[in-house]
Amino acid sequence: MNEFQIIKQFFQREPADLLSEEKSHSGVVLGIGDDCALLQIPPHKQLAVSVDTLVADVHFPANANAEDIGERALRVNLSDLAAMGAEPLWFTLALTLPKNSEFCSEDWLRFFSRGLFRVANEFNIALVGGDTTSGPLSITIQVMGAVANHDALRRDGTSIGDFICVTNFIGDGAAALAVIQHKLPVNDEQQEYFHNRFYRPTPRFIESTLLRGIASAALDISDGLVADLTHICAESDLGALLDVENLPLSPALISTNNIDQARRWALSGGDDYELCFTVSPEKMPELAMLIAQGKLHATVIGEMVAGASVMCELNGKPFLLEQQGYQHF
Amino acid sequence: MNEFQIIKQFFQREPADLLSEEKSHSGVVLGIGDDCALLQIPPHKQLAVSVDTLVADVHFPANANAEDIGERALRVNLSDLAAMGAEPLWFTLALTLPKNSEFCSEDWLRFFSRGLFRVANEFNIALVGGDTTSGPLSITIQVMGAVANHDALRRDGTSIGDFICVTNFIGDGAAALAVIQHKLPVNDEQQEYFHNRFYRPTPRFIESTLLRGIASAALDISDGLVADLTHICAESDLGALLDVENLPLSPALISTNNIDQARRWALSGGDDYELCFTVSPEKMPELAMLIAQGKLHATVIGEMVAGASVMCELNGKPFLLEQQGYQHF
Repeated sequence: MNEFQIIKQFFQREPADLLSEEKSHSGVVLGIGDDCALLQIPPHKQLAVSVDTLVADVHFPANANAEDIGERALRVNLSDLAAMGAEPLWFTLALTLPKNSEFCSEDWLRFFSRGLFRVANEFNIALVGGDTTSGPLSITIQVMGAVANHDALRRDGTSIGDFICVTNFIGDGAAALAVIQHKLPVNDEQQEYFHNRFYRPTPRFIESTLLRGIASAALDISDGLVADLTHICAESDLGALLDVENLPLSPALISTNNIDQARRWALSGGDDYELCFTVSPEKMPELAMLIAQGKLHATVIGEMVAGASVMCELNGKPFLLEQQGYQHF
Repeated sequence: MNEFQIIKQFFQREPADLLSEEKSHSGVVLGIGDDCALLQIPPHKQLAVSVDTLVADVHFPANANAEDIGERALRVNLSDLAAMGAEPLWFTLALTLPKNSEFCSEDWLRFFSRGLFRVANEFNIALVGGDTTSGPLSITIQVMGAVANHDALRRDGTSIGDFICVTNFIGDGAAALAVIQHKLPVNDEQQEYFHNRFYRPTPRFIESTLLRGIASAALDISDGLVADLTHICAESDLGALLDVENLPLSPALISTNNIDQARRWALSGGDDYELCFTVSPEKMPELAMLIAQGKLHATVIGEMVAGASVMCELNGKPFLLEQQGYQHF
């Protein structure tokens, strides 16, 4: 198969294949196959853009199921759109495949594209272009979405006294990686839970839509809670104080680890793709009501303070971390 | 250096550094540093998007000058915007660097970013986001631009009898690669010419602007003239007949090769980043006038015919090619 056959067979879907009838108004004027895709942004909206590369054996095991790789690649990118409060519209895929390898096989490409398009259908995002090159296996996806002016959930905008919250459970991402690397023994049920947390993280679109007008700052946790929260601190020249005993840990994480390891993964493990956000005391009753009504799963884990760093306390005493987050270099 | 230090030191320019005063209205609402960049498309324009990956030792020698690599990476991507008739606005950069290698050094990154930003300044395009990961050296750039509705130069729209043209000279790209690989002996002047043709291809924005309203179809030549022209043929269910004796060959190409080799590189070598376009007989006088006035360097090399493939003739006899273009797989 040459590059064009690969694109035609696995990635060039007709709009009807890709999107159901009522979802097809996605502004794609011209899709795959020309020098550029041509796209129409909805009126009065800004374009939100994010790009992420997944490298084999850095971001996922090269021998993982190709369908899982395709799912994860798009999901982690969608997480950035969700964290911005943007509606998903389009994505491009730059796929680098080693020549004469299993990754160029019809099987691998069929399963990879199946995983990718399952997620694309679920979140109503259209593949509009890409590039297929030979080289070491890696996947770069750029997601594009739309957000109304002033509706974006940015990293700046937090103040002293704002509450710090996270959605759902954190720490599962790092534990899931340990499970996949056979470093953490689990039973079948836990295996499935962690497998899904790693390969099928849920971009938190529902949550970020609810948080519009409530959160003063927000981002998704990819490098680790402390490392990512440091960005929110830096944008507002503030520090953060985290209550380690309040970190929301999943039953699977607690039952497979001692509490200290579980907390350290929650603080610095990364790959959680949950939202970390801040809320002013004035807006806190609104958030608390959403939580009480079961509409939003979120936990208050600390507050913004004067300073320039993220401090962690356990029962009023400092809780020290050796590493604050994932380091690529 | 960690990922954030690399971004801060080499890629996060203040708007004032990146763009001169009068050029700064580029619609960047929020640039590098959040989950997404936020961008404002000019009114009544469509977004044009293209992505290209350059893999070390596939698209450029890994030991090439980092400044050259940075220049080439952005220029070949800009070529796609030019070929679409779009105005450049923004780009993202996904950079994968091998851990503990020379490519993570301050020197390499300083020169790479210098080459990249020199091109960004020249074409007034702003870096708005990216990703830096560890892995085998590769560079994925997505360029974004704007084009007025109906002004885009697409691949469809050609008809039987339309003239086929190319800008400037073709075949230099393949010869330049041979020079870089020390497979083609050259003198100093030729060395410099081919080096520039490989690392500093000129995105043909001036030409594509002139061709608006004149060309019936257009694309840039990256895989090779015949391979790329096949896409124009496919979009309109037509064939093409090329006059091999009319191919525009540079003095450097002719003086370093026999004419047969020069023509084969022009037909199937790729990496030329010149425009291939078609023009109807009605519009031909307009094009001829631009050429006669010296405003546009272009040559008529054939015409669209019934059929489904690209045929080449030399002095009325078939001219056969073993390979039609670069094959990645």
